[in-house]
Amino acid sequence: MSPKDTQYKIYLTEKDIPEAWYNVRADMKTDHRPILNPATNQPVTVADLSPVFCEELCKQELNSADRYIEIPDAVREMYRMYRPSPLVRAYPLERALKTPAKIYYKFEGGNTSGSHKLNSAIAQAYYAKAQGLKGVVTETGAGQWGSALSMACAYFGLDLKVFMVKVSAQQKPYRKAVMETFGASVTSSPSDETQIGRKILAEYPETGGSLGCAISEAVEYAVTHEGYRYVLGSVLNQVLLHQSIIGLEAKAAMELVGEYPDVVIGCAGGGSNLGGLMSAFMKDKLEGKTAPKFIAVEPASCPSLTRGRFAYDFCDTGKITPLAKMYTLGATFIPSANHAGGLRFHGMAPILSQLYHDGYIDEARAETQRAVFDAAVYFARVEGTLPAPESSHAIKVAIDEAVKCRESGEAKTILFGLTGTGYFDLAAYMQYNDGSMTDTVPTDAELAKGLAELPKV
Amino acid sequence: MSPKDTQYKIYLTEKDIPEAWYNVRADMKTDHRPILNPATNQPVTVADLSPVFCEELCKQELNSADRYIEIPDAVREMYRMYRPSPLVRAYPLERALKTPAKIYYKFEGGNTSGSHKLNSAIAQAYYAKAQGLKGVVTETGAGQWGSALSMACAYFGLDLKVFMVKVSAQQKPYRKAVMETFGASVTSSPSDETQIGRKILAEYPETGGSLGCAISEAVEYAVTHEGYRYVLGSVLNQVLLHQSIIGLEAKAAMELVGEYPDVVIGCAGGGSNLGGLMSAFMKDKLEGKTAPKFIAVEPASCPSLTRGRFAYDFCDTGKITPLAKMYTLGATFIPSANHAGGLRFHGMAPILSQLYHDGYIDEARAETQRAVFDAAVYFARVEGTLPAPESSHAIKVAIDEAVKCRESGEAKTILFGLTGTGYFDLAAYMQYNDGSMTDTVPTDAELAKGLAELPKV
Repeated sequence: MSPKDTQYKIYLTEKDIPEAWYNVRADMKTDHRPILNPATNQPVTVADLSPVFCEELCKQELNSADRYIEIPDAVREMYRMYRPSPLVRAYPLERALKTPAKIYYKFEGGNTSGSHKLNSAIAQAYYAKAQGLKGVVTETGAGQWGSALSMACAYFGLDLKVFMVKVSAQQKPYRKAVMETFGASVTSSPSDETQIGRKILAEYPETGGSLGCAISEAVEYAVTHEGYRYVLGSVLNQVLLHQSIIGLEAKAAMELVGEYPDVVIGCAGGGSNLGGLMSAFMKDKLEGKTAPKFIAVEPASCPSLTRGRFAYDFCDTGKITPLAKMYTLGATFIPSANHAGGLRFHGMAPILSQLYHDGYIDEARAETQRAVFDAAVYFARVEGTLPAPESSHAIKVAIDEAVKCRESGEAKTILFGLTGTGYFDLAAYMQYNDGSMTDTVPTDAELAKGLAELPKV
Repeated sequence: MSPKDTQYKIYLTEKDIPEAWYNVRADMKTDHRPILNPATNQPVTVADLSPVFCEELCKQELNSADRYIEIPDAVREMYRMYRPSPLVRAYPLERALKTPAKIYYKFEGGNTSGSHKLNSAIAQAYYAKAQGLKGVVTETGAGQWGSALSMACAYFGLDLKVFMVKVSAQQKPYRKAVMETFGASVTSSPSDETQIGRKILAEYPETGGSLGCAISEAVEYAVTHEGYRYVLGSVLNQVLLHQSIIGLEAKAAMELVGEYPDVVIGCAGGGSNLGGLMSAFMKDKLEGKTAPKFIAVEPASCPSLTRGRFAYDFCDTGKITPLAKMYTLGATFIPSANHAGGLRFHGMAPILSQLYHDGYIDEARAETQRAVFDAAVYFARVEGTLPAPESSHAIKVAIDEAVKCRESGEAKTILFGLTGTGYFDLAAYMQYNDGSMTDTVPTDAELAKGLAELPKV
């Protein structure tokens, strides 16, 4: 094909940035089971949640009725700094794979936070500011969410306190530096600044921390500090709502070039990316229209969809959050330290869990780390973008699907989410390059331990 | 202003990627003085240069006649992976500064190499491949050029050998990891792989290396290895030619929104960015049309334009390259190790030097490091992009000019080059954040030392 016939990057204009987020719950045949107050086992209310979350975000969390939620002007204005994100046709990858498939990816890494997390960070910071709060508090593991939130808080003029998983803070000092450059205060977790942190430190003085533990600390900090609320970058309904902008834009951009995907592939940790990417296409499926096959890709070292249980569970290690009905490995499950990327949450977003349980998400695959990095390095060399390890789970499966098309001769249209860049994951790439990277897949016995501790509901 | 009236990012379409580079030498009233063979003090010929550089690039280096050089299709095809780069209207910065000025920046950091260097890397790798070479060899300091070249070589299937300044390789292991991920072989310089490297190691066993020394090693490696040629990311005429795409696109994008700059500001180390950014606008000036004021911004720790001499000098520490007439601090000048960013070359591109000498570049300013980082952090928090330290020199002066407009009430249109992102410069940001960053300005006596060693021509 001559270069004159190709268009690599399909951009919508800034005027085409959606004016409303899409709330998939309004179209789900079966809503996810209600979030429960663990003290009473009763569905939580806005009043239950509002000491923890911003008022408006509590309402979004519990809103299953409104199909569209208007995006505030101030949020759309900050979106214009980096959105619409490009939809990219992966011509070099197609040529390298000699596949008749058309491969597209929605690239969310073209902003300083390096991932799609910024889409929800901006919304959450905006609502906190609008409520007159002094600041917000959160946790971060790999650091994408913390970086995104620090950018949004700097923009809106909010204080930000981040509990960063201790081992991540040590392994990724530069991620911490990004957050501090944007004005955030970053504390390694577990810390002595919270009751739960002190308790964990007393029991396990040598621990490197975990995401679940950092969540516990952040929530405690929020409810014990005047003018602060807790914010979270994945799992929650509100996050999937905000991330719907990925799918809305992707669908509109594909329409611009007369395409519609046969397959939609997204990596899935807590579910924010896949939930966002699939949104507008899932609407088609829920309405009984032609729709793509949806594939969720998770790490073999943290396989909530493929090896977890669909049950009520806490969202944090400290067991202080409400209970959600979701695919879970148990709140105490912590993936092996060998696991390099994110996607290390023990559960999966209730919305995605329900859709998967009901067959609307067609398939989940668990991929091992080295196979994922094989795909990442191949992609980088061919497409010229160094992908985040998280995103590379989707790349792995997109390549597998394109190779199947080569074998079958089918010219399928594949869409995957390139959620971010790997510029802060070079330590992992170095391990891959020097051959020291290992795969870790939990044994059935290891998984049984976490599942045995599920709460009785 | 309502968000509905604003457009942050002005994108040309891929069809609008220029079909030819602009060779400013064809329009210069006085061409730069010829490059000389140091053995004879006679102007170099293609035959002199072709053992070192690819044949086609030698021709481009010595071409002062052709105004436009066609961009090969294969180069334009790879350009489509990340170009046209966006022209961004800095609305949030304007609002924060309360300036009537309109501030635009051409953002070249939206690719994995993180800078504009990729524009020339692709061209140089293409010509090497077209000549049937096995590989190319180069040096890198901060690592932007090496990263860019590793991407281009991976794409075209060329071997790449990089001599990386030893202290940079130690301070930036992740830059090295990027190059290795794209398949490059990276050697710390000085090394024992070349005669000049062994000589320098014998004299200064503890040295951290320098860019000039790494250039010497790379050139020696190229001329002593069959099927290899040397490539360079700045200073050369061919590099400024390839980088003209920045200015050609910037001018076309400004025309799209009915704008023309009053001031064009670019950081200047070797000159690749400023030479590229100003290209199409300099054409207007050379033709006697209305044209912007051009401001070159260099680090106070390596002030070739503001404190150097306009004289013939070597381009490398080892004094094995041809002689160029340029602003120089002397080939043996090495900026203080405290200096965090790039822009550490002792000279300035001959084209820029001549244009500055003849008054076509209106002004050069030298900025100290902490003032540059003040501007960088301010910009990051307001505009949401973490800039490279190099680019932040231009940001500093753009902010100064916008503040002057606030004071004078003038609504000038300012265009600056945001050459790259600072994702691999977090060690410097950490120094800035914790207050340990210092300014280093060479004394007159220190500068006199390098200038005393200029060759007699």
